[in-house]
Amino acid sequence: MSQGNLQIVLAERPKGDIIPGQTFHQKSTKVPTADDLKDGEIAIENIYLSLDPAMRGWLNDKRSYVPPVPIGGIMRGATVARVIASKNESIKVGDVVRAMAGWSEYAVLNPGTPGVCEPVADSDHLPDHLSVLGLTGLTAYFGMLHIGDPKPGDLVVVSGAAGATGSVAGQIAKLKGARVIGIAGGDDKVKWLVDELGFDAGLNYKDPEFKSKFKELTKDHIDVYFDNVGGEILDMALGQAKPFARFVMCGGISQYNVTDVQGPKNIMNVISMRIKMQGFIVFDFIKEYGTARKELAEWLNAGKIKRKETIIKGGLKNAEQALVDLFKGVNTGKLIVEIKNPQDLSKL
Amino acid sequence: MSQGNLQIVLAERPKGDIIPGQTFHQKSTKVPTADDLKDGEIAIENIYLSLDPAMRGWLNDKRSYVPPVPIGGIMRGATVARVIASKNESIKVGDVVRAMAGWSEYAVLNPGTPGVCEPVADSDHLPDHLSVLGLTGLTAYFGMLHIGDPKPGDLVVVSGAAGATGSVAGQIAKLKGARVIGIAGGDDKVKWLVDELGFDAGLNYKDPEFKSKFKELTKDHIDVYFDNVGGEILDMALGQAKPFARFVMCGGISQYNVTDVQGPKNIMNVISMRIKMQGFIVFDFIKEYGTARKELAEWLNAGKIKRKETIIKGGLKNAEQALVDLFKGVNTGKLIVEIKNPQDLSKL
Repeated sequence: MSQGNLQIVLAERPKGDIIPGQTFHQKSTKVPTADDLKDGEIAIENIYLSLDPAMRGWLNDKRSYVPPVPIGGIMRGATVARVIASKNESIKVGDVVRAMAGWSEYAVLNPGTPGVCEPVADSDHLPDHLSVLGLTGLTAYFGMLHIGDPKPGDLVVVSGAAGATGSVAGQIAKLKGARVIGIAGGDDKVKWLVDELGFDAGLNYKDPEFKSKFKELTKDHIDVYFDNVGGEILDMALGQAKPFARFVMCGGISQYNVTDVQGPKNIMNVISMRIKMQGFIVFDFIKEYGTARKELAEWLNAGKIKRKETIIKGGLKNAEQALVDLFKGVNTGKLIVEIKNPQDLSKL
Repeated sequence: MSQGNLQIVLAERPKGDIIPGQTFHQKSTKVPTADDLKDGEIAIENIYLSLDPAMRGWLNDKRSYVPPVPIGGIMRGATVARVIASKNESIKVGDVVRAMAGWSEYAVLNPGTPGVCEPVADSDHLPDHLSVLGLTGLTAYFGMLHIGDPKPGDLVVVSGAAGATGSVAGQIAKLKGARVIGIAGGDDKVKWLVDELGFDAGLNYKDPEFKSKFKELTKDHIDVYFDNVGGEILDMALGQAKPFARFVMCGGISQYNVTDVQGPKNIMNVISMRIKMQGFIVFDFIKEYGTARKELAEWLNAGKIKRKETIIKGGLKNAEQALVDLFKGVNTGKLIVEIKNPQDLSKL
């Protein structure tokens, strides 16, 4: 923990992989106090930072669903934070909030701007507000239920299944009565999916026999494919799609760092198998967050949805390397950077 | 016209291009008469044969929406035909029918089997029953209205726009108030789209400036893309898609004869632009054919939908070369083989 307010800003746009020490730069500014606040604003100290595959896309200067992070700008990111000063009538010092506060130890926010921050219950397991109850859980919820729409007995395949979104998406499909196969990068992850989360089967894509095992397990063909990875696995799923399959296009982590994207050669199966391949962004469903969070919280509290976090300790300075490691699959479940140990928050 | 019943059968499955004289073989059988019919059956003489890009797919031994044409089997195809003998109470000698009668001068059919044949009005322009009122017109109708769903002011792009399906699809989008850009292979085709059919603009994909012109014309981004070609143009359309664009996946003529399919590199735009990319087959809408044909006939009779046919004369023996030429873009509008000159039908 620095004495000032450590912030991590985008230094240059990566061509392929993020290069530690080059893509981002650290800077230190003053810790905000009540004196720095305008009416309606709050100052927060960030506790946990969510790391998400989508962050790689935010670094590209390309038309997308949000503007790219500007060069020199603080890296975008969702956090769980505690309010240390407030000139806002509805939020008081000590409240815990989920915020789009960026890669910064402290931040000044105006909670009046939609989507900027919202109070969460302090008593809960705080990382849940970035995972099952955060944007990743909501992403799984809307993608699986609104696009995938699994029916009892459907064969559902989830890629990136041991990640924060995939693990929840697969469990939701199970709750709807589907048979669920999860694809992940490691035998330990596959074991977690099957033994702990109740997936019907799991496949390690690093297994030399992966392709033949995939074909065998999907020989009845796929009703719903929830894609977090893109690339070759998306192509294999297209090849095994059942007529009228739904392809939930959520992410493509295998393609985010490559400069020469491999388009799916089985794209023509979209026609012959009448596939509906639909992309979505969780923000499109903002009006339904409340209903979705209520149901996700019920499932979580009832033990019907299980989760795991991989928490990187040691502060915000480790976020850049952690993001690099996210693309190497270091995490099982949600990858979170602990900006500040919750036991060691500022005196208020 | 042979003395017997000329039939064209599949000799071997092409690897890439259809090879004239090698992919198909001709054979001659007996012309059917009333004596050959079981109860309920009819004998027909085919007048016009529909040639369709989808025929290339029917030659592959690959899981698809219909079984492949078997080796030694008569090539599948839709025809307009006249009944020359009948043991069916509801169809009489001299009636004109649209039939899935295959590449054969004569055929015996059982009209009781759904989808095999249906009477059409003899007084109409007969080729319409294979184009605007046939499966191609229905394909355009269901694809554009059920998946594309164009709204007034939407930017709609149609590839293969001078073909039988594309030309109708574009005109339907115009009827719904959209701005429509058609892509075709030749300045004469583009001129037809704009001057005769009322498209707002046309692009010749063989123009060396095609890519830059495409980008300029679609700079406000695409709401609906009706794809008949796949390959590079599909990829360009993905790159120019507007958020929540609908991609009507109808055909991929540029990819049917290639052994190494080029997947779309812009596939990740499906996510960032929340594209719905949906494939369909006209047969899925069989219960709605009646309603659709009624509306298509009204538009056709009112001059709101215009059409053109490219009719290959000289009999069924020319069908194989005509199918090869279809993939070279020889046709404007519907490509039809005249199996028998309507002026020269058998005496009944």
